[in-house]
Amino acid sequence: MKIVVLKFGGTSVGSISRIKNVARIIISHIKKKYKVIVISSAMSGETNKLSNLTKEISSNFTPPEYDSVLAAGEQISCSLIAGRLNDEGFLSRSFHGWQVPIYTSGEYSHSRIVSVNKNNIIKYLKKGGIPILAGFQGINSENRITTIGRGGSDSSAIMIAKFFKAEKCIIYTDVAGVYSSDPKLIPNAKKIKKISYEEMLEMSSLGAKVMQPHSIQDARLHRIDIEVRSSFNNKTGSLITKRKNVSTKNIIRGVSFTKNDAKISLIGVKDKPGVAAAIFEPLYKNSINVDMVVQNISSNKKETDLTFTIKTEDLTKTVKLIKNNKNIKFKNIIIDEKVSKVSIVGVGMITTPGVTFRMFNALAKKNVNILVISTSEIKISVLVDRKNLKKAVDVLHKEFKLDY
Amino acid sequence: MKIVVLKFGGTSVGSISRIKNVARIIISHIKKKYKVIVISSAMSGETNKLSNLTKEISSNFTPPEYDSVLAAGEQISCSLIAGRLNDEGFLSRSFHGWQVPIYTSGEYSHSRIVSVNKNNIIKYLKKGGIPILAGFQGINSENRITTIGRGGSDSSAIMIAKFFKAEKCIIYTDVAGVYSSDPKLIPNAKKIKKISYEEMLEMSSLGAKVMQPHSIQDARLHRIDIEVRSSFNNKTGSLITKRKNVSTKNIIRGVSFTKNDAKISLIGVKDKPGVAAAIFEPLYKNSINVDMVVQNISSNKKETDLTFTIKTEDLTKTVKLIKNNKNIKFKNIIIDEKVSKVSIVGVGMITTPGVTFRMFNALAKKNVNILVISTSEIKISVLVDRKNLKKAVDVLHKEFKLDY
Repeated sequence: MKIVVLKFGGTSVGSISRIKNVARIIISHIKKKYKVIVISSAMSGETNKLSNLTKEISSNFTPPEYDSVLAAGEQISCSLIAGRLNDEGFLSRSFHGWQVPIYTSGEYSHSRIVSVNKNNIIKYLKKGGIPILAGFQGINSENRITTIGRGGSDSSAIMIAKFFKAEKCIIYTDVAGVYSSDPKLIPNAKKIKKISYEEMLEMSSLGAKVMQPHSIQDARLHRIDIEVRSSFNNKTGSLITKRKNVSTKNIIRGVSFTKNDAKISLIGVKDKPGVAAAIFEPLYKNSINVDMVVQNISSNKKETDLTFTIKTEDLTKTVKLIKNNKNIKFKNIIIDEKVSKVSIVGVGMITTPGVTFRMFNALAKKNVNILVISTSEIKISVLVDRKNLKKAVDVLHKEFKLDY
Repeated sequence: MKIVVLKFGGTSVGSISRIKNVARIIISHIKKKYKVIVISSAMSGETNKLSNLTKEISSNFTPPEYDSVLAAGEQISCSLIAGRLNDEGFLSRSFHGWQVPIYTSGEYSHSRIVSVNKNNIIKYLKKGGIPILAGFQGINSENRITTIGRGGSDSSAIMIAKFFKAEKCIIYTDVAGVYSSDPKLIPNAKKIKKISYEEMLEMSSLGAKVMQPHSIQDARLHRIDIEVRSSFNNKTGSLITKRKNVSTKNIIRGVSFTKNDAKISLIGVKDKPGVAAAIFEPLYKNSINVDMVVQNISSNKKETDLTFTIKTEDLTKTVKLIKNNKNIKFKNIIIDEKVSKVSIVGVGMITTPGVTFRMFNALAKKNVNILVISTSEIKISVLVDRKNLKKAVDVLHKEFKLDY
């Protein structure tokens, strides 16, 4: 059976006319002789609306009931799609999580799909039907509705593609694919035809809002090819696939950036073994993610300066935790919210020397001062003043020939 | 186990503050040492909103998907109630139709509850939990969601009360109970403390919008006592119960009326055997309900006049069917939309002679002309000009001592 999994995001099913359009897209795949399994998100805005209802009921709303309320959103949209396909003369029906069933484990609101009963769906596909599955939901061992944290309906689509050994998994969304940078900032940014999971992971966690990192990680783990494309036009999107499928002359695939980082510098920290651990332990315990870290050797050997970045939303909490931390001593704390992280990403850099030099040199020529540096195997990130953001992304996009 | 079933209608759960109020009502029953099973309707307006979505998708939306979309309304409200009870420190959870399960048969959107698996609920009640069941829904033999036609969540409540042998079934709604007439028209109308199923059936089908006739019929069939009361205050409502439980000195319990009747008179119909059948057959086939019928003996023995009433909404269709009916001949058709049916209802009239005379006499004294009459065992209905409606209801309400 040649199976394709199609997943439609919230904006793709965000109105009646868009749902009708989704039905046309599904039919186009049927006409190519594919067996189609559809995963639907809730209509855009619906999940927030439902979530707000629970917040008004209680500031501490019970997780199992929260999941039951939220799951209604996908229940509605998947039935609307099936109804539309029926109207167009196609055999189709909705499947809620419990009707498949899709089994999950883990906590409510953060559950993970662990298994899928394929029988009902396979039987229905063999009859020529188009099953429309509610994304983002499953049931646990207590027969209660759970929602999938970390990736939501994208994760549902990837797991369904895995269990049904689908030939393709297409994520229909409101962006045309993965770009070499944000087209809003860099008009010359180009759509990337193929990108490896690893590159995409670095790109997505660095700010390209195409798919959530956890969904890409799922796809990578299960070796599922994913095409990300727009449901609003008929253009080919970007394929996220295994590294060996990606052949490109470009060392660097993209330049990504963030706008929600904040930099904290602790000046004159008493330097002794374990001081960094003493600083970061309370942050870790409060689920605050520290991103870039740099420690300067001070001229005074008994003191050091420590700089690190966190998400802006965690700033107030972080400063409070540091000021209340009795295990550390420092002279001054300096906060800078007007910073941005700019990153170049590409598997090519593993085998190509001189990438770091080219990056720093290009930035230096434009007088962009580098505040902090961090690197991984396939990316180099620098922290710069927010005012230099566009200049920095622009020069790197040109330097690594992504403009063409 | 002393079980009470509480059902909350759409307006009773129509906002966050009202859901919080519903939780308080539930807790008040728990404090009286009852085991409480709750049935919830969807928040008011929600079912219409969902229904409209399906209509926009297709003018002929598939029934199973329609039911799946609509069932989301009760799914949301029952979880919001359970979440609120959790917030107040009580053990409570939602049960969707498939989680009980509640089994139905019959067509989608018009299904009937045929059985209920009691195990899960009983186990939960024994643990001290408060189960909140989604009304209006169940699953059929194909494991698909169905909705209960004919009475909706009221029917769910009555069937749950039956299967669990509940001591009481309380229907919380936005009216204070059953009144001797419509308080908007007759300010002296009084709340009825106890009323028999049969009287209530006549009252409800004649216009008192407290409960749907089919739900009352269910309650009657299964001998379930129902209290109808408002969720907006703490006052006792009306008990709908077996005839033998109702003792009253009043022969007549209520005066009800309609405003959506239309009268059609066919003048000079060729009189021959089977002519009435020939007139009404096409109406029956088109699901048009003919209510009151009167046939006059004409002075010309070969012709007759026939008058009948239908719902105003069926008027255009009815007139068309009659004009296109080749099996009948008549000289003229007269339509009157400005009529109302006024009825007196009471089991007492079975054993009390002279009720008909008192009714007609009271109306005559006020110069209210009677256009058509129809009677059943426990009610007498007359058709009057709409302009005489208030006068007629008023005089009958006084005549049968319902003002005190």
